[in-house]
Amino acid sequence: MTAPVRIVEVAPRDGLQNEPTRLTTEQKRRLVEHAVRFGARNIEVTSFVHPAKVPAMADAEDLVAMLPPADGVTYSALILNERGLSRALAAGITEVNVVVHCTDTFSRRNQGTDIAGGIGIWRRIARDAEAAGIRANVTLAVAFGCPFEGEVPVEAVRSVAEQVLQERPPAELSLADTIGVAVPRDVAARVEAVRDLLPEGTALRAHFHNTRNCGIANALAAIDAGVGVLDASLGGIGGCPFAPRATGNIATEDLAYALERSGIDHGLDTAALREAGRWLQEQIGRPLPAMVLHAGGFPTGDAAA
Amino acid sequence: MTAPVRIVEVAPRDGLQNEPTRLTTEQKRRLVEHAVRFGARNIEVTSFVHPAKVPAMADAEDLVAMLPPADGVTYSALILNERGLSRALAAGITEVNVVVHCTDTFSRRNQGTDIAGGIGIWRRIARDAEAAGIRANVTLAVAFGCPFEGEVPVEAVRSVAEQVLQERPPAELSLADTIGVAVPRDVAARVEAVRDLLPEGTALRAHFHNTRNCGIANALAAIDAGVGVLDASLGGIGGCPFAPRATGNIATEDLAYALERSGIDHGLDTAALREAGRWLQEQIGRPLPAMVLHAGGFPTGDAAA
Repeated sequence: MTAPVRIVEVAPRDGLQNEPTRLTTEQKRRLVEHAVRFGARNIEVTSFVHPAKVPAMADAEDLVAMLPPADGVTYSALILNERGLSRALAAGITEVNVVVHCTDTFSRRNQGTDIAGGIGIWRRIARDAEAAGIRANVTLAVAFGCPFEGEVPVEAVRSVAEQVLQERPPAELSLADTIGVAVPRDVAARVEAVRDLLPEGTALRAHFHNTRNCGIANALAAIDAGVGVLDASLGGIGGCPFAPRATGNIATEDLAYALERSGIDHGLDTAALREAGRWLQEQIGRPLPAMVLHAGGFPTGDAAA
Repeated sequence: MTAPVRIVEVAPRDGLQNEPTRLTTEQKRRLVEHAVRFGARNIEVTSFVHPAKVPAMADAEDLVAMLPPADGVTYSALILNERGLSRALAAGITEVNVVVHCTDTFSRRNQGTDIAGGIGIWRRIARDAEAAGIRANVTLAVAFGCPFEGEVPVEAVRSVAEQVLQERPPAELSLADTIGVAVPRDVAARVEAVRDLLPEGTALRAHFHNTRNCGIANALAAIDAGVGVLDASLGGIGGCPFAPRATGNIATEDLAYALERSGIDHGLDTAALREAGRWLQEQIGRPLPAMVLHAGGFPTGDAAA
């Protein structure tokens, strides 16, 4: 048995953010409830970003106010700047995921500043989060390729990671394949490049999209290289697989299947997971990309002749 | 650079066999032409099986008669018995893929005999193929799991492989995940178990379905373990991904992307491959499962600010 892997459920945030079907705040609350029920211990419930830029997350405060406390469960939120942190703290969030980009062009378009500016934002957030006594993580976005700049060299990712880890290192450092271009070789190279930089107390995490069908391969490669925390999205939501430039996260159902059959503990209840996926599919109103949701698990073999 | 991998294009056979949209023989001929154009050097064009059981392949003789000879390209066909071999030989086929099953129950339902009977059929075909001077391969079906018997132990696969390799070993021995349940760990274990049995002159091949989203991970695991020949299907056809019990083959487009980004030569022309996928999607009349067909390749990076 390999060491257990913790799956961070990101459907309420990264999933719904790119989903054409808009869910109500009450539906989102029920989605989070489902995630708690299937055993997710960390759920990225929303993002505190500009509501005009990401309308699907405009109800962040309302949603967080509706979430019931659950034993051993952390509700985290994504933020891009200090305004986001203030809102998250006011809402009672106890863990934030801060985005720092690995290319200047993507950083400018998504965060309004270059890489250096993003690292400055992270340092101020890290200081304020420490003062507020909450956990702060960093996601290294476009760590495997950039829609504007193309190739993102391993050395660029390592350099951004080094700067992020100075002063106050994050609790988790996440390598994110924001646009779904990675293959396992890229994953191994980047994990190897940042692994020896990590101080004790900083865990490695990874975030993959199945945009080019390599998502599960990348997740397994990350685990092989020593990553212990993986993001996944119930149903694989986060973009229609048949739309141009599809951007769905790897599906929680498919990741759980791959881990289970690989002898890696993930701690989720697969029956409750299946039920949650079916519920979400009804809310979204179209077949979701998660393959195990449709195909089912490993056959029981009770039909032998 | 890893050693080059040869992709066997199976869309005309395994793809169309399970496709709800029925193509005409002329459309199939054009599909094969497309495969030749994008660089496939081995194309499984049809199967010589009972037309009542697989109506989509009832035009096997007509199709083969329409195929233009192409330099360096082999048109192969799947067969289940000696009647199939006679038909294939009469049609002028020069390479056959013979199925031997790894569980008795699946073998009985698909071939009308148990494993031992299947091995007997293979031995008689191997003898007749040798006499006819054509190449004969064996596909070990349900080598990773069986819809009727469930788990298929590594030892069972090794035992079937051992018997297949006696007397006249096939040119290629293929491990097939017929129902799409494998994960990379299973692939490594089975390749390792049969590798040392292979005589010189028998190459290892693998056949994966993306039913539970592990197809590309399994293909890469097979290559890592030393497999040099992989089946794939243009567009990922072979079952709608959103139908229950979806059974699509891994997509040629997605496999080519994964190989290319992994530094593994596959010999296909990706521009012609893209064009072929778009053409096939028009014929089938619905979005196909191949993700790279929709998302495109790695970004060129010419939009840097």
